[in-house]
Amino acid sequence: MKPKLTLKQIARELDVSVSTVSKALRDSPEISDDTRQKIQAFAKLYNYKPNNIALSLKNRRTKTIGLVLPEIVHDFFATVISGVEEVANKRGYNVLICLSNNSFDREVINLEMLANGSIDGFILSVAKETQQKGDYHHLEEVISQGMPVVMVDRVVNDIICDKVIIDDSDGARDAVQQLIDNGCRKIAIITTVDYISVGKLRTEGYLRALRNNDLEVEEDLILKIEDVENSHEEIAQFLSEREVDGIFAVNEQFATSAVKAIISQGRSVPDDVLVFSFSDGELSRRFIPTLSTVNQHGAEMGAKAADLLLDRIENDTTEEKFQTTIVKTSLIERESTQNRKMPAV
Amino acid sequence: MKPKLTLKQIARELDVSVSTVSKALRDSPEISDDTRQKIQAFAKLYNYKPNNIALSLKNRRTKTIGLVLPEIVHDFFATVISGVEEVANKRGYNVLICLSNNSFDREVINLEMLANGSIDGFILSVAKETQQKGDYHHLEEVISQGMPVVMVDRVVNDIICDKVIIDDSDGARDAVQQLIDNGCRKIAIITTVDYISVGKLRTEGYLRALRNNDLEVEEDLILKIEDVENSHEEIAQFLSEREVDGIFAVNEQFATSAVKAIISQGRSVPDDVLVFSFSDGELSRRFIPTLSTVNQHGAEMGAKAADLLLDRIENDTTEEKFQTTIVKTSLIERESTQNRKMPAV
Repeated sequence: MKPKLTLKQIARELDVSVSTVSKALRDSPEISDDTRQKIQAFAKLYNYKPNNIALSLKNRRTKTIGLVLPEIVHDFFATVISGVEEVANKRGYNVLICLSNNSFDREVINLEMLANGSIDGFILSVAKETQQKGDYHHLEEVISQGMPVVMVDRVVNDIICDKVIIDDSDGARDAVQQLIDNGCRKIAIITTVDYISVGKLRTEGYLRALRNNDLEVEEDLILKIEDVENSHEEIAQFLSEREVDGIFAVNEQFATSAVKAIISQGRSVPDDVLVFSFSDGELSRRFIPTLSTVNQHGAEMGAKAADLLLDRIENDTTEEKFQTTIVKTSLIERESTQNRKMPAV
Repeated sequence: MKPKLTLKQIARELDVSVSTVSKALRDSPEISDDTRQKIQAFAKLYNYKPNNIALSLKNRRTKTIGLVLPEIVHDFFATVISGVEEVANKRGYNVLICLSNNSFDREVINLEMLANGSIDGFILSVAKETQQKGDYHHLEEVISQGMPVVMVDRVVNDIICDKVIIDDSDGARDAVQQLIDNGCRKIAIITTVDYISVGKLRTEGYLRALRNNDLEVEEDLILKIEDVENSHEEIAQFLSEREVDGIFAVNEQFATSAVKAIISQGRSVPDDVLVFSFSDGELSRRFIPTLSTVNQHGAEMGAKAADLLLDRIENDTTEEKFQTTIVKTSLIERESTQNRKMPAV
């Protein structure tokens, strides 16, 4: 067998994007006639064969599932992996993990690789860049060919498949309500830009909690961060210019940066400012003070996603009814919200 | 094609371990005649076909490499992954990640799955349980069949292949020397049990540093931990019964537990006790105080391992000369060793 020509190699040869090649090969009208013909001619010349997933699925079972994740530097996705592995292994399946590193192109390449017959189905959490572009043709393609797919956490509403999500908005609302119950009246939120689906939902929950308690929404107390890895200075600057008594951060990185900023201003967490985080990772558990947080139950999400996927694989049904499972968040209260000076109102 | 019978299924049917099946099928004298015959008969009856890696390698290239890791909850392996991915992607390869979860059986199953023709070679860091058992037949088998393998970080001396390690012992010695230079005279080490190769080496480095400075080695100041995840109480207990002025911890988990224990005793880090950690992860960077640490350069290790593997895959040589690359550690000094009260001697 000769080496298989990949989308990426075609893209490199013709100096176009992987996405363009992928779309051209399935005759997408988004690609100009000229480019489409050039790509199709090249693919034919070098005998490119798109995967015929439907055929391969019919004839064999690999007892392996794929798991495509945006990143693993944060504990949340590590817990999702552990949940998927536990269920899959118990049911006799192996798990292959691929990372998109939040890149659209890598996600497309990963799906191409996995769909070549080495897995029976996959679980996916969408890359940040894919959400930003809003381009899901690679997903639509594998699904339309009959590959079972379950989306987890970072899902796409328009794609029809089984999904496992948490109640991001309700979890955020509950955390902010807790800050309010503990006496906070000027609560800032440190969140992500809106195109990250979970960031947007958590911001909505924050706004709902304020409105439920007739507290004014101050746009000035909402910080939306684009670059998570380099957000420390931005957060310190934001907090140095505002007087707040509570902070809701949508992830552990933002929460720890916020605590450091407050301390470096000579104020205390939780004596002067209460901090509530989101996602229960090692940082939250080990930080000083330990961080109150919204538990996302990542392992449960992973386990549920694996069960949904394996049920679909094993039932071999073409049933068109898909389900979205919502895993409920819960609050974990730790030192960062155990206010001693501020009386509950 | 019928579903492929796996080692695991045979093991389950016959109520023996995966390892026993694997050994019996290659006629290992470690397995009794009776068991061996039973397993071989079963495998024949159900038409079990071991992978013929050598054949498959000769005929095709998948442009995919495997990466088998013991765990990913700790930042170190996440950085190794990023290094492997960067080099592999740049050279046109995809990466499939499998986790052994430190289980011997899962490692055996992962290698069986990866060796079925879906990858061109793999990078492995050995599971804790595998090191404990000292059973490496699954590795010997894939290597003897011609599969290119590179071991990284947790390596096995007896297995002949390319390896990438760090100077664990020297890194530990340098960290402890730094504590000594900062005035510490009663330095405890919090380390792992000896069968973890890197823990053992770091303990050796600690002992060398003490001897180099004519400091007495006190067995009572050496804490060897078996269960990393539940070590917090053990560390607190250990430190409550000893007067130390410096602590060297072989990972971030131990280091943060040590800092908490010291603080809960009413003492301060770094004013009363200096703490040096190993491996530069998010915990070390974000903790209060930030932790001084030995940088393992995980990304560099991963990148080097990927280059070694791809060179071997692409050169298609059966050259028997293997190399062990040592990536040098370096010290990162942060707040946990910036002693103000204790004068350097």
